Amino acid sequence: LRKGFPEVVFCQGKTTGQIVEIMSRLSQNNHTVLATRAGREVFEAVQAVLGDAVYSELARTIVVYRGPRPVPRGNVLVVTAGTADLPVAEEAAVTAEVMGNQVRRCYDVGVAGIHRLFDRLDMFKWAQVIIVVAGMEGALASVVGGLVEQPVIAVPTSVGYGASFQGLAALLGMLNSCASGVGVVNIDNGFGAAMLANAITRCANVTGAEIHAGNSKF
Amino acid sequence: LRKGFPEVVFCQGKTTGQIVEIMSRLSQNNHTVLATRAGREVFEAVQAVLGDAVYSELARTIVVYRGPRPVPRGNVLVVTAGTADLPVAEEAAVTAEVMGNQVRRCYDVGVAGIHRLFDRLDMFKWAQVIIVVAGMEGALASVVGGLVEQPVIAVPTSVGYGASFQGLAALLGMLNSCASGVGVVNIDNGFGAAMLANAITRCANVTGAEIHAGNSKF
Amino acid sequence: LRKGFPEVVFCQGKTTGQIVEIMSRLSQNNHTVLATRAGREVFEAVQAVLGDAVYSELARTIVVYRGPRPVPRGNVLVVTAGTADLPVAEEAAVTAEVMGNQVRRCYDVGVAGIHRLFDRLDMFKWAQVIIVVAGMEGALASVVGGLVEQPVIAVPTSVGYGASFQGLAALLGMLNSCASGVGVVNIDNGFGAAMLANAITRCANVTGAEIHAGNSKF
Amino acid sequence: LRKGFPEVVFCQGKTTGQIVEIMSRLSQNNHTVLATRAGREVFEAVQAVLGDAVYSELARTIVVYRGPRPVPRGNVLVVTAGTADLPVAEEAAVTAEVMGNQVRRCYDVGVAGIHRLFDRLDMFKWAQVIIVVAGMEGALASVVGGLVEQPVIAVPTSVGYGASFQGLAALLGMLNSCASGVGVVNIDNGFGAAMLANAITRCANVTGAEIHAGNSKF
Amino acid sequence: LRKGFPEVVFCQGKTTGQIVEIMSRLSQNNHTVLATRAGREVFEAVQAVLGDAVYSELARTIVVYRGPRPVPRGNVLVVTAGTADLPVAEEAAVTAEVMGNQVRRCYDVGVAGIHRLFDRLDMFKWAQVIIVVAGMEGALASVVGGLVEQPVIAVPTSVGYGASFQGLAALLGMLNSCASGVGVVNIDNGFGAAMLANAITRCANVTGAEIHAGNSKF
Amino acid sequence: LRKGFPEVVFCQGKTTGQIVEIMSRLSQNNHTVLATRAGREVFEAVQAVLGDAVYSELARTIVVYRGPRPVPRGNVLVVTAGTADLPVAEEAAVTAEVMGNQVRRCYDVGVAGIHRLFDRLDMFKWAQVIIVVAGMEGALASVVGGLVEQPVIAVPTSVGYGASFQGLAALLGMLNSCASGVGVVNIDNGFGAAMLANAITRCANVTGAEIHAGNSKF
Amino acid sequence: LRKGFPEVVFCQGKTTGQIVEIMSRLSQNNHTVLATRAGREVFEAVQAVLGDAVYSELARTIVVYRGPRPVPRGNVLVVTAGTADLPVAEEAAVTAEVMGNQVRRCYDVGVAGIHRLFDRLDMFKWAQVIIVVAGMEGALASVVGGLVEQPVIAVPTSVGYGASFQGLAALLGMLNSCASGVGVVNIDNGFGAAMLANAITRCANVTGAEIHAGNSKF
Amino acid sequence: LRKGFPEVVFCQGKTTGQIVEIMSRLSQNNHTVLATRAGREVFEAVQAVLGDAVYSELARTIVVYRGPRPVPRGNVLVVTAGTADLPVAEEAAVTAEVMGNQVRRCYDVGVAGIHRLFDRLDMFKWAQVIIVVAGMEGALASVVGGLVEQPVIAVPTSVGYGASFQGLAALLGMLNSCASGVGVVNIDNGFGAAMLANAITRCANVTGAEIHAGNSKF
Ligand SMILES: Nc1ncnc2c1ncn2[C@@H]1O[C@H](COP(=O)(O)O)[C@@H](O)[C@H]1O
Ligand SMILES: Nc1ncnc2c1ncn2[C@@H]1O[C@H](COP(=O)(O)O)[C@@H](O)[C@H]1O
Ligand SMILES: Nc1ncnc2c1ncn2[C@@H]1O[C@H](COP(=O)(O)O)[C@@H](O)[C@H]1O
Ligand SMILES: Nc1ncnc2c1ncn2[C@@H]1O[C@H](COP(=O)(O)O)[C@@H](O)[C@H]1O
Ligand SMILES: [Mg+2]
Ligand SMILES: [Mg+2]
Ligand SMILES: [Mg+2]
Ligand SMILES: [Mg+2]
Ligand SMILES: [Mg+2]
Ligand SMILES: [Mg+2]
Ligand SMILES: [Mg+2]
Ligand SMILES: [Mg+2]
Repeated sequence: LRKGFPEVVFCQGKTTGQIVEIMSRLSQNNHTVLATRAGREVFEAVQAVLGDAVYSELARTIVVYRGPRPVPRGNVLVVTAGTADLPVAEEAAVTAEVMGNQVRRCYDVGVAGIHRLFDRLDMFKWAQVIIVVAGMEGALASVVGGLVEQPVIAVPTSVGYGASFQGLAALLGMLNSCASGVGVVNIDNGFGAAMLANAITRCANVTGAEIHAGNSKF
Repeated sequence: LRKGFPEVVFCQGKTTGQIVEIMSRLSQNNHTVLATRAGREVFEAVQAVLGDAVYSELARTIVVYRGPRPVPRGNVLVVTAGTADLPVAEEAAVTAEVMGNQVRRCYDVGVAGIHRLFDRLDMFKWAQVIIVVAGMEGALASVVGGLVEQPVIAVPTSVGYGASFQGLAALLGMLNSCASGVGVVNIDNGFGAAMLANAITRCANVTGAEIHAGNSKF
Repeated sequence: LRKGFPEVVFCQGKTTGQIVEIMSRLSQNNHTVLATRAGREVFEAVQAVLGDAVYSELARTIVVYRGPRPVPRGNVLVVTAGTADLPVAEEAAVTAEVMGNQVRRCYDVGVAGIHRLFDRLDMFKWAQVIIVVAGMEGALASVVGGLVEQPVIAVPTSVGYGASFQGLAALLGMLNSCASGVGVVNIDNGFGAAMLANAITRCANVTGAEIHAGNSKF
Repeated sequence: LRKGFPEVVFCQGKTTGQIVEIMSRLSQNNHTVLATRAGREVFEAVQAVLGDAVYSELARTIVVYRGPRPVPRGNVLVVTAGTADLPVAEEAAVTAEVMGNQVRRCYDVGVAGIHRLFDRLDMFKWAQVIIVVAGMEGALASVVGGLVEQPVIAVPTSVGYGASFQGLAALLGMLNSCASGVGVVNIDNGFGAAMLANAITRCANVTGAEIHAGNSKF
Repeated sequence: LRKGFPEVVFCQGKTTGQIVEIMSRLSQNNHTVLATRAGREVFEAVQAVLGDAVYSELARTIVVYRGPRPVPRGNVLVVTAGTADLPVAEEAAVTAEVMGNQVRRCYDVGVAGIHRLFDRLDMFKWAQVIIVVAGMEGALASVVGGLVEQPVIAVPTSVGYGASFQGLAALLGMLNSCASGVGVVNIDNGFGAAMLANAITRCANVTGAEIHAGNSKF
Repeated sequence: LRKGFPEVVFCQGKTTGQIVEIMSRLSQNNHTVLATRAGREVFEAVQAVLGDAVYSELARTIVVYRGPRPVPRGNVLVVTAGTADLPVAEEAAVTAEVMGNQVRRCYDVGVAGIHRLFDRLDMFKWAQVIIVVAGMEGALASVVGGLVEQPVIAVPTSVGYGASFQGLAALLGMLNSCASGVGVVNIDNGFGAAMLANAITRCANVTGAEIHAGNSKF
Repeated sequence: LRKGFPEVVFCQGKTTGQIVEIMSRLSQNNHTVLATRAGREVFEAVQAVLGDAVYSELARTIVVYRGPRPVPRGNVLVVTAGTADLPVAEEAAVTAEVMGNQVRRCYDVGVAGIHRLFDRLDMFKWAQVIIVVAGMEGALASVVGGLVEQPVIAVPTSVGYGASFQGLAALLGMLNSCASGVGVVNIDNGFGAAMLANAITRCANVTGAEIHAGNSKF
Repeated sequence: LRKGFPEVVFCQGKTTGQIVEIMSRLSQNNHTVLATRAGREVFEAVQAVLGDAVYSELARTIVVYRGPRPVPRGNVLVVTAGTADLPVAEEAAVTAEVMGNQVRRCYDVGVAGIHRLFDRLDMFKWAQVIIVVAGMEGALASVVGGLVEQPVIAVPTSVGYGASFQGLAALLGMLNSCASGVGVVNIDNGFGAAMLANAITRCANVTGAEIHAGNSKF
């Protein structure tokens, strides 16, 4: 077992009772626990049992820290095209932080006003990995991918209407990005983007030996 | 009948014999004739009869001018993301010229190297209407639409592979553009984009009365 | 910054608090403000702060005028196939008016009773740009596009059921219009249609120099 | 067995040998035989054996008449939007004739030039059933359906490109027709449209008893 | 105007007030009025004004008869695969009756228990037109179409789940029917099926002259 | 290793050289070898090396028997709707035979002429498993599934055109079958259907112990 | 009639009254009755009349046993990838039990933690048929199909979000399984999977004669 | 300009003449040049001019090295499910090598024979990034993603038929992977996967300062 490592609970499709039970058990085993897709009522039930649980309304995440906090090792930048993309972006940001990364946010820099993007280039220089969160046509992933050399993780969101087809337009746009160095995750999957970012910063900041030492599955 | 106005023949699905016959008849009636989607063998058959026919290999267009050439009245800029978009762009450019517009071309300025776009901003200032031709994710339409105030006509192309689904990704991207002032035409429809651009420059450069004088359909 | 120009707030996905705050700030800076996709409860909160805000129940728009009203410069005609298309049509009409155009409405002239369309041809002559709003099979855009020389902006709506697939049938129909001079915007995007219409009437009614003078983005 | 009735052979997916064999056998049994989707080389092999076989290059049909020709009993009008729709229209026309109907053709009256349709209204009055064949957006079916009281059979064709998606746009448009009295068959299925038209004219021109007398399947 | 003919109001997307107003006006003009997609609360409001209005809970139709009832002239059979298809079937049945046809119902004879179908063959002999209403895989339309010579109108329903994709599976199945003589209408469009059936029985039971006499649109 | 068991080579995407090499090696190890999706030219190259190879033109299969032939243990019936479905049906039949089953064929019994199906019911009684191969709307799977108690394996084929979308219509129809006891495999996957049939007849005809004795993978 | 055999009622789309009536009647005829897709309120109404009805909240099934319980004859294993797949899995498990099979459950062994699967291989050896229930990418069906020789019935579930498209991703994955011996049923169709499993175990555990003796439909 | 860095030419949609010209020019500027999607005839024309060009038939790549070869800095593992996935895998492998990585290959370890995967776990330990190339249902990406902690780049391929829909099934499967740490690129995009892998190994093996020093685009 991977003692001490953060564990994750995906709340969608679980009852509040199940979530409280799982989170209690994991945190007693000294795991930091992250719960995603958690409504406020779930948080309140968790907090009654785990008083130090921290909720993010926007990200819909609950975090319970256990054991020593790791020294943040990776620089992860989360970028959004619009404000409606924030819930997905915050799910990514909270996840990346819990996994042991430093996170900076660069929100609302979509291509309809591209000058806002160029005003923030220093943030892009700071980052080791960049998560781009965008709905509608998802063009921001291509623009960012064309500007930077670092790995870009593109998260299409279901923001939009009509022919956005619940994120399909953004998804297809990102998969067809004319910029190279862009990997795509599922629609609205801020969590998955952060996990991939974390895998990247781990492999960037620890030695190969360390990676495998921490990998109990083999 | 609209004597003297350019007439258009869409060659796809017609035999060479039919095309030669139609173009001869129309040009005898003193119409300038534009044929689109014409292969070289079609051109050669047309040229045998109409010696002054002009062919564009890239655009796959044949033009036969008749009557006085109109003084060009509109400024139409045709922009492409990549070189593979050129056939569609040239179909648009030739059509816009035949309809009586001045055309400038700004090719290969896709968002993967966005600096190339910013080097050409004077062209964008010159234009009354801008036609953006792009395949893959089609992000260029959003970037251009965000930069300019003029009407933008977006033409998705079937350039790409895999999840571009023969232009569907670009089409959806353009329809969901977060920039306003963008109208979309069918995949690979350079002709249609130019006809819309021409309708716009006509309405911009002649008076309302003139528009309707030339409109014999009512 | 583009002082005095109308600014637009897209309410979908924003809290009432955010909308009130943004609209207050923009109107204090002497901008006319248009809010789209606004429910009545949003309007009431806005009105409490901006007493002269005007609501359209049908269009779901809020308008707050500031500064001198521009002399209307373009003639925009909004046409619908049926009565269920009215909310989208009114979003277009209100937007076009706020942007400084004269707007006329020609509603419920769908192709199932095509004589109603022919009774209104004078309206079509008056227009510089025509916005066609239609759901189900969206055939009205082709019929209008075939009758007029002016630019036609086609707005597919999600009106219909079954194989209309929430507006997809109308969208595909409009993109494949056999009439030329037709540009398409996203499903239910009355706002976008009006912005494109406005870009067209601006380019038709001011000189090129004026367009670029008002364009602060370069 | 239904002696004397026309039999149909669908050639797609059959070898020339198989087709010749089937047609010989059926015609020896005194059946009039119609073969659809037949290339010229198939016809030539059939003709070598059945010297009176008649080929239509456009319709891709072979007909071999046997027994007395029935007195044509129904009036079927076949209408097309464009010239590229002719092969499908002719498959319908030939089939309807072989089945014992009078057929008239009204071709190239698509909605981009709707006046051509209004010039032919007498033909529409003559018809008992109208088959409308159209590709691209398929709007002609709605326009015709809105004008007439007779049953309309709509045949979407694969004519078009890009977002026509091989006839899908026309198919969806026809299924969502805002005019009532319209039934739809498969893309490019001229044969099926004619068979439905024939079922309609039979039920219109013979008594119920006659229908069932000829129906050996019960 | 077509005095005395039944008029139809499609309630979806209209307010109760609008519906009451339209139905009152039409019935005062001596039209029989049929309203489809009407909820019970709409009926109650209508009944308060038009006391003889008749409601069908299952069909969701309101009928107000005015003028002499026509002698029923056509024999329309409505068939369903399952009981969940009944609302669509009843919309068809009520519409066909209001339009002046005799209607018989043959429900719940889906292909999973095909013997039930064979027990009712006399009903099929009686019919001039057969409407087949089926969801899921929609196979009943093919089976019926293969058994009878009369025109078959297939109505796919949204009954089913998963890969039925809200009626798409049934729609595609019916369009690809290997039986000939089958026309398809939109998913859940019982009304449209009945209108087509009525157009067929009219053309079967009146002379051509009578059809056109009643057709005021030319 | 599973000595003596038939091995399968999927030829699509392999060079003739690779196929000859693999088949030689496997047959030398005393395996019966079945190659699917093999063109005639592939067969000829194989036959040059393995003189007793047997080819089926229709099934596009090559079989090389090695070791003692197993006593056929299961009764597999392969049914098709039309003659165009034969290649897929024969791929299934050959595979089932090679795997050690008795196979009977019941071809061309599609629902457009359902009486042909009822003439063959004895074959259905004989079978332990029934493979139904059908394109277009695929209704035959539902009809057979409703008639029998045995497991039915439905194979959609790409036979058809237009809205069959290369087998999608049949696939969706079969997945939504209103008859129970029907499992579906990929479009045109006759091989996969036979392998599932074989798994079923093995579990029907050998004891559990025998199954696992032959299963070297645990 | 098939006296004594379990009968099934599909509650979706039926009123509570209808369900109570049907279940009462069937159980009076000495049939064991299984109702699927039944909410708790339906159960309560049934229980008021049939006091021994048994409800499963998770499976949403009601069972009323009548007559002697059959000796369980087949071994059916139900496997799930995650906990959100449990409702579908339990629908399958309850159905298989009611039909006369022994059922074992192996839940939450998805491929993200594949070692959990390998810990349970004895269960797989016990089974005659394996039902694999999985959403998201549905990879578990391929992994299980590659490990075992028995027939595998794959049930895609609508568990997931974004590009899972309500189960489409899992459905396509399962249909394209690179493992052979896998048949697929509709999304979320636990009932159908169990009925197919039951058809398989019947054919495995009774003689052919017995199958047909119990089959009253011929 | 980024002197000395490898430049890439995408040959699809370019003429041989264009490709030769571009590659000559770039290599004269001392850039290593990689050409992808290059047929043998293109290679031969390139080789005539650049004698040291190296071709991979399988990967369809041409490489011309210029300047000192970089010391390989990252460990990239390329994994495939089947042999038909090799062209895409080799495009990835060659690209990763040219960009300065060590590459190992682990081919034909698809989940239908999962033991082959477990035999190679040492290779997985060696890797810093893993590229998984798979068609059909694409399940291998989930299985690998569940086993390792390193970043996984999933490349769906168009290998398969029927409901694989040219790679769509694999694409959806990979996007819905229940394993975390998986990013997806376009169907058949081996090049893009390698570029993302390279961005990851660069950020893992050079300091942040070095990344940005080499990044001339800011
Ligand atoms: N490349 C094109 N794409 C779409 N439509 C076209 C194209 N070229 C011409 N057309 C249209 O086709 C019409 C001529 O069609 P036809 O009469 O069949 O030659 C023109 O009036 C245009 O509206
Ligand atoms: N063009 C066509 N499209 C669709 N179905 C056709 C066509 N021509 C013939 N058929 C059908 O194919 C049947 C003959 O098929 P077959 O027995 O395979 O030759 C006829 O009875 C028709 O129902
Ligand atoms: N259930 C229905 N489905 C589709 N169209 C309908 C339905 N009921 C009525 N209609 C159509 O709607 C028209 C009336 O629309 P409206 O004028 O908006 O009330 C009628 O003439 C019919 O063509
Ligand atoms: N016609 C077919 N369709 C689908 N899969 C097949 C077919 N024929 C063989 N296979 C599968 O392909 C595997 C052999 O693939 P390979 O090792 O690439 O030759 C067999 O074990 C089967 O599972
Ligand atoms: Mg980049
Ligand atoms: Mg703009
Ligand atoms: Mg026009
Ligand atoms: Mg009509
Ligand atoms: Mg029939
Ligand atoms: Mg059955
Ligand atoms: Mg297996
Ligand atoms: Mg992992």
